[in-house]
Parts: sequence; structure tokens; C-alpha cells
Amino acid sequence: MSVRVERVEDATGLPGDDPADLDRNDPEAEIAARAAAFGNWGRWGPDDVLGTLNFIDPQKRVEAASLVRSGAVVSLAQRFDTEGPQRGWRRRTNPVHTMTDTGTDAERGSQGFPHGIGGADDVIAMPLQCSTQWDGLGHIFDHGMAWNGRRAGDVVTSDGDLVTGIEHAASVVASRGVLLDVGRFLRPETGELEDGYAITAADLEATIAAQGASSAVGRGDIVLVRTGQFTRTRRDGWGEYAGGPAPGLSLTTAGWLHRTEIAAIATDTWGFEVRPNEFDVPAFQPLHQVVIPNMGLTIGEMWNLDELAALCAQDGRYDFLLSAAPLPITGAVGSPINPIAIL
Amino acid sequence: MSVRVERVEDATGLPGDDPADLDRNDPEAEIAARAAAFGNWGRWGPDDVLGTLNFIDPQKRVEAASLVRSGAVVSLAQRFDTEGPQRGWRRRTNPVHTMTDTGTDAERGSQGFPHGIGGADDVIAMPLQCSTQWDGLGHIFDHGMAWNGRRAGDVVTSDGDLVTGIEHAASVVASRGVLLDVGRFLRPETGELEDGYAITAADLEATIAAQGASSAVGRGDIVLVRTGQFTRTRRDGWGEYAGGPAPGLSLTTAGWLHRTEIAAIATDTWGFEVRPNEFDVPAFQPLHQVVIPNMGLTIGEMWNLDELAALCAQDGRYDFLLSAAPLPITGAVGSPINPIAIL
Amino acid sequence: MSVRVERVEDATGLPGDDPADLDRNDPEAEIAARAAAFGNWGRWGPDDVLGTLNFIDPQKRVEAASLVRSGAVVSLAQRFDTEGPQRGWRRRTNPVHTMTDTGTDAERGSQGFPHGIGGADDVIAMPLQCSTQWDGLGHIFDHGMAWNGRRAGDVVTSDGDLVTGIEHAASVVASRGVLLDVGRFLRPETGELEDGYAITAADLEATIAAQGASSAVGRGDIVLVRTGQFTRTRRDGWGEYAGGPAPGLSLTTAGWLHRTEIAAIATDTWGFEVRPNEFDVPAFQPLHQVVIPNMGLTIGEMWNLDELAALCAQDGRYDFLLSAAPLPITGAVGSPINPIAIL
Amino acid sequence: MSVRVERVEDATGLPGDDPADLDRNDPEAEIAARAAAFGNWGRWGPDDVLGTLNFIDPQKRVEAASLVRSGAVVSLAQRFDTEGPQRGWRRRTNPVHTMTDTGTDAERGSQGFPHGIGGADDVIAMPLQCSTQWDGLGHIFDHGMAWNGRRAGDVVTSDGDLVTGIEHAASVVASRGVLLDVGRFLRPETGELEDGYAITAADLEATIAAQGASSAVGRGDIVLVRTGQFTRTRRDGWGEYAGGPAPGLSLTTAGWLHRTEIAAIATDTWGFEVRPNEFDVPAFQPLHQVVIPNMGLTIGEMWNLDELAALCAQDGRYDFLLSAAPLPITGAVGSPINPIAIL
Repeated sequence: MSVRVERVEDATGLPGDDPADLDRNDPEAEIAARAAAFGNWGRWGPDDVLGTLNFIDPQKRVEAASLVRSGAVVSLAQRFDTEGPQRGWRRRTNPVHTMTDTGTDAERGSQGFPHGIGGADDVIAMPLQCSTQWDGLGHIFDHGMAWNGRRAGDVVTSDGDLVTGIEHAASVVASRGVLLDVGRFLRPETGELEDGYAITAADLEATIAAQGASSAVGRGDIVLVRTGQFTRTRRDGWGEYAGGPAPGLSLTTAGWLHRTEIAAIATDTWGFEVRPNEFDVPAFQPLHQVVIPNMGLTIGEMWNLDELAALCAQDGRYDFLLSAAPLPITGAVGSPINPIAIL
Repeated sequence: MSVRVERVEDATGLPGDDPADLDRNDPEAEIAARAAAFGNWGRWGPDDVLGTLNFIDPQKRVEAASLVRSGAVVSLAQRFDTEGPQRGWRRRTNPVHTMTDTGTDAERGSQGFPHGIGGADDVIAMPLQCSTQWDGLGHIFDHGMAWNGRRAGDVVTSDGDLVTGIEHAASVVASRGVLLDVGRFLRPETGELEDGYAITAADLEATIAAQGASSAVGRGDIVLVRTGQFTRTRRDGWGEYAGGPAPGLSLTTAGWLHRTEIAAIATDTWGFEVRPNEFDVPAFQPLHQVVIPNMGLTIGEMWNLDELAALCAQDGRYDFLLSAAPLPITGAVGSPINPIAIL
Repeated sequence: MSVRVERVEDATGLPGDDPADLDRNDPEAEIAARAAAFGNWGRWGPDDVLGTLNFIDPQKRVEAASLVRSGAVVSLAQRFDTEGPQRGWRRRTNPVHTMTDTGTDAERGSQGFPHGIGGADDVIAMPLQCSTQWDGLGHIFDHGMAWNGRRAGDVVTSDGDLVTGIEHAASVVASRGVLLDVGRFLRPETGELEDGYAITAADLEATIAAQGASSAVGRGDIVLVRTGQFTRTRRDGWGEYAGGPAPGLSLTTAGWLHRTEIAAIATDTWGFEVRPNEFDVPAFQPLHQVVIPNMGLTIGEMWNLDELAALCAQDGRYDFLLSAAPLPITGAVGSPINPIAIL
Repeated sequence: MSVRVERVEDATGLPGDDPADLDRNDPEAEIAARAAAFGNWGRWGPDDVLGTLNFIDPQKRVEAASLVRSGAVVSLAQRFDTEGPQRGWRRRTNPVHTMTDTGTDAERGSQGFPHGIGGADDVIAMPLQCSTQWDGLGHIFDHGMAWNGRRAGDVVTSDGDLVTGIEHAASVVASRGVLLDVGRFLRPETGELEDGYAITAADLEATIAAQGASSAVGRGDIVLVRTGQFTRTRRDGWGEYAGGPAPGLSLTTAGWLHRTEIAAIATDTWGFEVRPNEFDVPAFQPLHQVVIPNMGLTIGEMWNLDELAALCAQDGRYDFLLSAAPLPITGAVGSPINPIAIL
């Protein structure tokens, strides 16, 4: 099920996997080449709203369920609270959770209910991508175009994503999950990649090779890439983290993401791809621009992979049943989630 | 694994299963009797924060995973949007989902990003119990006392649930699920119980008997009770639904909920138990008062069980792997969820 | 200072004041004629962001301050709470006000502050136009064009109103206010116009004549039109009010609104103009379409004019100092306000 | 109308005005002495909900209106947006303002309205004390007691302030305003007091003396104290401002605040009083603890006094009509405001 790394541009004309080949002064061209080479528009018909999630089929889920051996469950979510990474940039705050009724009031007897019943209730206000989340397919556009070749303005208005809203994925996202602990593989002493480290396709394949057969990656899998940055932020605090420097995937992994036919991918960082981005001119999340609107790939961010990584290392096994259904918020371009791995 | 129904109060002094025996003028006494008989304070030690979720053990999850045969997934969530049941009572509104960036803006080219990338992003404000949800253990109190014998004011302040917040269940709620389609069993023509119908322990057992061996209920299971009311509201609209009349569990099911040792239970109605409640004097959610603070039972509400019910009826099989982890919102007394059944 | 009513279309070609002359099958033409006749694009230069608020000059405020005689103050705001008119239409809910700290917690001693200090604090989530409010100039567009001839998409994106945001009016809206109690004048027994009643320019002038010289209306004044509908909703409840039938200004008052050179106008109804609108084909708020983007008129809605009306009737004087500055929410297209009349 | 500064504790036993006399190791005693000496419980009867706002009488407002000479208006509000001072401490974020409809959508023609009308609409989520604001009387407690001797838990529950909610002040807060530009007086070169500077009663009186007769302070006035810190934050950014070091009133001004019989006071800083507070042991806002629950004084914070200060300095006149009515948010313990000075 594993996929060989190769420099394919000579033979095939496809953009290659080596960051050294990037023209660091022309992000637009580098993006365009990958959009052309690795795009999936029309692959699942003109009405598709799922993109690469289509790679998950029932047989894949049966396979995934068969991976459950110990019955252990690991939550891969950060906690949703004011200790999160958001600092207000682009109106992204941490969640604001408030109580409309409390135990203090109930104990004091001032709630006005009969027969001694009391209650507590609560509300939340939060950006949908403030913490552990899936990006929806309407989250990113390429030159005004959305997933599957639709005009961005036909898809996402101020009423939300009218076409590819996250609710369409409500009953899809359960599959075989594979952890690639790149942080531990490349930095065995600390387990943490440094900010700005661009993970390459070769890094991913080398991690797979090191981890062994259970981490082979193929069609319909959901890949979880641990960089170790989350470990660092828990220790040192977030600082001005959200949007700042971080390890992450190189733009040049676009080919790997495409040829593996994975269903989705998530990292333990704010922005999935390496920050700063790999250009000497202004650039912003070029890999997003390739994989979301063009490839139709569902991306997860800010996952907590530390406990899972410890368990996998201990067991020497890196695949598991992953259940990570989004909240079906109608028209949302992202969803907070609590993904769980069942091992 | 199934549990026999019996009138036990004669032999044991426990409150019985027959609604006819309720003193309809004394809810406080009826609640107190059940709290005394079916309470679980201390059962899992003084520091427990999970209640009956403790009944789920790894072996139960291995068993649950083994139920996956077809690989089909069914989402059991309603959509989170303005079409939901809330009308503002007790500050419970439907979710308010708004966009901070749109495709229309991206297509028009006014977002100010480089190399043709555009984005859409969104925020939400919502009560945590506005739609498909788990009640946390801090949601209900009995005479100022919370789960496991703690003072309500020691547990839930305006900072949230400091002890039993829903985040503690983040990696717990995956188990064998069992659908009891009481609506279809009792009303085969319509599949819908009428508002005000109080489901009894006998009804639950008769449904189990009719559905067959795959719906036997025992320790660690998560039971889903379909009344059919959600089917009706989707057809006829919610009206002034939230808090209004509905079918639901009778107070007298408390014994059944206790002796089956189920981990959690959910219904397709707003309030789990029958509305109006079964008393001739003012009463409000007496079964909640018994099972949440006293029994430590996790309750789900407003689940969409219709598609699952159709699949189960077709297969003649009513158990499945249920994955329904709450969002780990620190200190929350409830969580919106997208439960999925994997069959 | 008063303005004569006249049928001017014969002499001048301007659209007239008589609703009987409306072509009830062609709202677009009726709107277009008034936009052409009564538009103010360019009147205050190409960069204008205030529209008719420009009519308020310092001398007008000196005049307004001189009207203060008794020192009485009347708030013209409804309360902002869950008892308001919103029912969720277009995501407009009533305000959701929640506490982040309470007195119950403070009294119980669990807040963790030193030397006996305790605190209460709160947050709010609300549509800016859920209750007593000003519409900003970016609130309504005419065929994709905003106030002063700008393209709507150049003015209001998902980042808000980038040009005419309500913050620009932060230090402007204090002037002479004039109450026109049309409800009391036309329906002396009840003081309440019936839903669907279209107030005409003749009604406004007749009310002025009946009330006397203190209600003469001219340049820079802020006119408050009481229909009595708010009185009715306080008595009978809102029902499904917001957006439903209501008395209000006829489309044919556009000429009066223009030639009086008033700075702003407010009513005690949800939508300022009569509902249903005065057409036999689908129509929605045609007077808004004329006066906001074309005339640059600031409109207030859902004001509570009852106490003010009682005071004015008692004194026989209908003008006063009106202070009604919006909250300077950057980029907002409306603002909740607490307007006060100082008499 | 001016008030003499004097050391009164020798003659009267009242706590004095000199910070040097504070026992910096005993905030509780220093607070208690001032609460006893300067408290107003019962002064306006047992049902009072306004505290010192009662000092504003109609005659005071007539006097205030008579101060209007030029008709100039100055807004004293900061803008409400993401550039504000909040960083998430105690769940206080800057306002999150989002659009539910935009001009981009309207221009694109996708809103579905008839006859060419388009609209923009918006919502906000914000702490009520995130920017320019009034503290309500339910905002602070002293040893579990609220204004006028009520138990804190009888006043503010999770349903809000049931007794002294800010809505009670809806038609009160218009009076004579007096600017005391302490920053300019004490630091004529920069106009900015340094963080940690404790303004004393002597400083206030000296500022009054320097500014001249128009800044005499007496019963019913609303005093605005400019420290210059806001000027600095606009130049240098907020940093981790909210809650951090700032100039502000010394605890020892409690006597001055009491004997002047002012109705309310506001500053251009986050927290009104000097930060850090004037003690060598843990302390938090001791002057709040004296003046809100004990004295019943309404406090304003984060006002923008710079433009007003420039105008006053230019005119040599420091009093004006101040209109600063709170939004009547039912049960709120604070309100965002846009105070305006009319000169």
C-alpha cells in the first residue's frame, strides 16, 4: 500500500518533490503547476461535494474497524477554552464559553424550579477554526474558483457555503488512520521539528519506512502528521502563535498527497503547511491553495497527537480506527471536532 | 445480556416500573425514592467524573468494533442551523453562524491575499444544548447537590463546571450502540408516538423482545430510543417545540436505567423524558433529577435516529459501533455532537 | 420652518405624495422615479459618508440645546433582552446576554480575589439591528449601488462597511428632535394605527398642523414618528412580529422626506415603512431602497416613543434636544442605541 | 462649587487623602475604613438602584444644556473593533463583528430580493466592558455585599443583575461634564502620566485650580479624568494592556469622590484606578471595592478624552453638556457607550 518517492518531473512533466527546485520568487507559477498536475476537478462528477473523502469506501471502514484490538480510545482534540492559540487575528478568538445557569445559583435556591431540581446551562461563541478542526472544501479558493471548478461566489456567500458546506461530510469521516510521527523520526532526542522546517515527501516516506508496515499509506487513509510543535506550545505557551512560524508540509508534498490517494490529512500545527512559506516574495499558504480548491483534500489542523504518538511508539503499530465526524453546521467552511483514535 | 422486567418493589422495596403507582401529587417524594434506590454516589470512588460512562471498558469497545460488517456510516445529528427547534426560551436560540470571509469577496478580489489565494472563514454562537447533544454530569442538580454527592456550587460556577466538565469524557464515548425503535414497535403504522406518551420499562423490554437478540441491552451499552417525534417535527415544523409536549421516558424507567447498567442513553426528542411530566402539580424533568446527579447517567437529546432506524429495520440488526465523543469544551455542562453509527 | 404639502408632479414632474397614484404592479419603476427625483448623490462631495446627517450644523445644536427647559430626560430605547421582537428570521435573534462572573459566586467566596472584593461581568451576542437602532448608510443597496454612487461591493464586504461604517456618525447625531404622534392624531381613542396603515405626507403635515408650531419640521431636524404599534406589542406581545404587518411610512413620503431636509427619521416599528408594502407584486422595503442608498437618509427603528409622547402631549410642546449617538462599531451597518430626549 | 482639599482625619477621624498614610500591608483595613467613612447605603432609601446618579437633578441638566455655545460635538468613545485592548483575560475579547449580508453579495445579485433592493446586516459578540463603558452598580461587591447593603447573590445571578441592572440608568446619565486633564497639568511636555502614577485628591484640586473656574466640581457633575495613557496606547499599541500597569486614581481619592458629591467619574484607562494598586501584598482594584458597592458611584473606563482635551485647552473652558446614556441591556452590570460632549 506504500507509495514510492520519485523525482517524476523529468519523465512526466509533473512538478517534483524537491523543495530545492521551487522558484522562490514565483509562488503563483509553482501553485499553478501543481494545481494543473494534481487537481481532481470532475473526478467524482460535476456535483461532487466531498473531494478526496470519496476515497473512503465501506470496505476501508471494515478494514479500519478490524484494527481495533485493545479497545483503547485516544482523543486527538485540544481543549476548547481560553488557553488556546488565538490572539484575535482576523477576528479569530479563543472560544468564549459562558454559563446561563450555574450550580452556585442552584445551590442558593434562586432558580425557581419545583421539587428541588436545579440546572446549569451554557453557550459558546467561537470561530469554527479556533482549535482542533477540519477545513471544509469551501475554506480556500484559487483565483476566485472553489472546489470542482465552481465560482467562489456561487459557493460561499454571507449565508455560508451553499454547496460544499461541512454538513455534507457528516457521515463520511471514519476510516483507517495512520500516524506519521515525523517529529520523533527526524528529531529523536526532542521529538520536535523546529519552526520553519518544511516536511518533504521524502521525509514522509522515510518516516513510513522507519515506523514499519503498519504505517503504509494508501487510498482512503487519513494521515496524521505529528511535527511536535504542539508539544512545544504546551510547554512554552502559544505566544503569538496562530499564524506564526511553525514546522509543516512543504508545497512540494502536493504530488505525494495526490498520488497516495489519501482521504484527508491533519497536523498538530495551526496551519498544516510550513510557516513562513517557502518563498522570498509575499506568499500565504500556497499548499492550501493547491490542495483544497484543486485537489479537494480535507485538511485538519491543531490536532493533539502526543498521547497517540506515545501509544503507537509503545505498540510499534501506527494505524487505527479514526472517527472524526464534523459537526453538521449547515454551510460551515470548517468544523470544530473531537477526533478519536480507537486502537 | 438482556434484562427482565419485573415489579420489584414488593420483594425489594425499590420503586417500581409501573406509572400507575406514581403519586401524581408528590413529585419530590417520587424523585427522592428513586434517587435513594438508584443512586450511584461513591460507586466509582470519591473523585469520579464519569458516572455510568465507567461501564464502558476496552473489551466493550472491542466487541463494538466487531459489529462493523458493511462499513456503512450514519450520522445521528440534526443539522445545526436556524431551522432548529429553539425559540429563545431560557436564552436558548438556534445556532447563529456567520462568515468572516466569503467566496463572493474572494471572487471579487478584495481580500488582499497574494498569488490568487482567497478564503472563507466563519464563527458560531450557540447554546451548547441547542441541538443534538450530550448533557454533562453538571447539567442537573438535586436539592443543590451534584453528581457523586458534591455541592452544586463547588462544581458549576460562572467559570463553568470545574469538576465534571464535559472535557473529561473526551476519550470515552465509543461503545456498542443499541437502537430501540419504540415508535415503530408501538405504532407500526406511523412509527410515531404521540406527544405526552410516557415510555415505560415494559415498553422498552417489549421493543427489545420484538426486535430480537441484537437489541439486548446490558452493561456499557449506549441505548438510543426512537420515539418518532423528530420525524413529525421535520414534517410539520417545530412550532413552539423546545420544552413543549413530547413523548419520552417515564420517571418509572429509572429502575430499568439503573439495573441495565447502560453507559448512556439518547432520544430523538428535546428533553429525553415525557412532556408534560407525569404529575398533577408543578413538575419539571423529574427523571433528569434522578439520573444525572444521582445515577451519574449521561443523556443525549435531539438525536436524529430516522436513517439509522430504517437501516436497522432493513438489516434486522439493531446494534452497531457508536462513536459519539463530545467536544472537549473545558467546563461545559453539555456538548453539541455528531454521533455516528458504524454498521 | 414647516413645509407645505402639495401635489408637485404636475408642475415639476416629481413623483407625487398620493399613494393612489402608485402603480401597484411596478415597484421597480416607482422606486426608480423617486431615486432619480430625490437622490442626493454628490450633494456633499464624492467622499461623503454622512448623507443627510450633514444637515445638522452646530447652530442647529445650539438651537436644540436651547429647547431644554425642565431638564427631564426620556429614554427612547426598548430594553435589550429576550423579550424583544426577534424570532430568528435572517439570523436575527434577541440579544443573548450572559454573565462571566456573578454575585452568587462572589457571595459564596469562590472567585479567588483578595481582600473581600468580588465582581460580576458580562458579555452579549446580538444582531446590531435587533432592537432600538440606527440603520447605517451601508445597510441598503439599490441595484448593487450604495450611498453616494459607490458600488456595493466596494463598500460592504465580510469585513464590514469599509466606507460608510456607523463609526463615522459617532459625533454627529445630536440635534433638535420633533415628535409627530401620528397614532394619536389619526386614532385619538386608541393612539394606535392599525397594521398595514400607510402614513402619507398629508398625514405627517396634518399631524404637524394639529400639534402646533413646536412640531414644525425643517433642515437638520430628527423626526420621530409614533404609530402606536409598539404600544400594542407591549400589550399583546410580539407574536411573529419582526418583519410582519405594521403601520409605517408610505413609499410616497419620499418627496416629503427629501424636501424637508431632515437629518434623520425614526419610528416605533420594526421596519420604518408600512408592511405589507404597497404593491400587488413581490416587494420588500421599497422606501428603504429610495432613502438609504439614494437620499442618504439615516433611519431609526423600534424606538420606544410612548413616554415621550405622553410628556409632549402634556406640555403641548413637541420638540426637544435629541441625543442619539451610535456606538462606533467599526464597519457596522447599524447600531443599537439608547436615544434620549432632553426636554 | 469647588471643594477644598484638606487632611481631615485628625479632626474627623475620616481616612485621609495622602497616599503616604496608607498601610501598604493591609488593603482590607484601608478599604474597610473608607467603606465605613464614605459609604452611602440607605442615603436614597432602601430600594435605590442609582447611587450617586441621584445627584443629577433636572436643574443640573438645565444648567448643563446652558453650557452649549458652539454646538460642537465630540465623541468620547474608542472605536469598537479588533484593535481594542482586550487579549482574552477573564474571557474579555475585543468585539467580534460579523456580517450576515454584504454589499459584495448584493452587487453580485445573489440575495434573492425583488426590484433590485439589496442589504447588509450584522451581528456582534462582545464583553460589555471591552471598550468605552460604564460599570453598573452590580459590577463589584465588598465581602459578598452589593450596593445599598444587598447580598450579592440576591442581586446578580447567572440571569444578570436582577436589582440594579444598567437599564435603570437608561434615562439618567446626562449632566454637566467637567474635564480634569491631569496628564497635561502634571506633565505639560508630554501630556501623559507614567504607568503606576497614583493621582491624588491634591492632584485633582491642583488641576482644577490651574484650569480655572469652569472646571470647578460639585454635586451632580460627571468628572472626566484624562491621564494620557490612552494617547500612549494609540501611539505605541496596547501590548498586554488590559489589566496591566496604568496611571489612575489613588485609593486615597475616595474621600474626594465622596465629598464632591459627583454623580459619576470616568478615565481614559482600562481600570480607573492606578495599576499596580498601592499595596505591597496582593491587592486588586481596592478603590472599586470602596466606591461601587459602598458609595454607589458609577465609573466609566476606556474613554477617549484626547479630542475633548484639545478643544477644552483651546477654549480655556472645561465644562460642557455630557450625554452618556447606557444601552438598556436588561440585567447588565456594565454597558458599552458612546458618550458625547456638546460644547
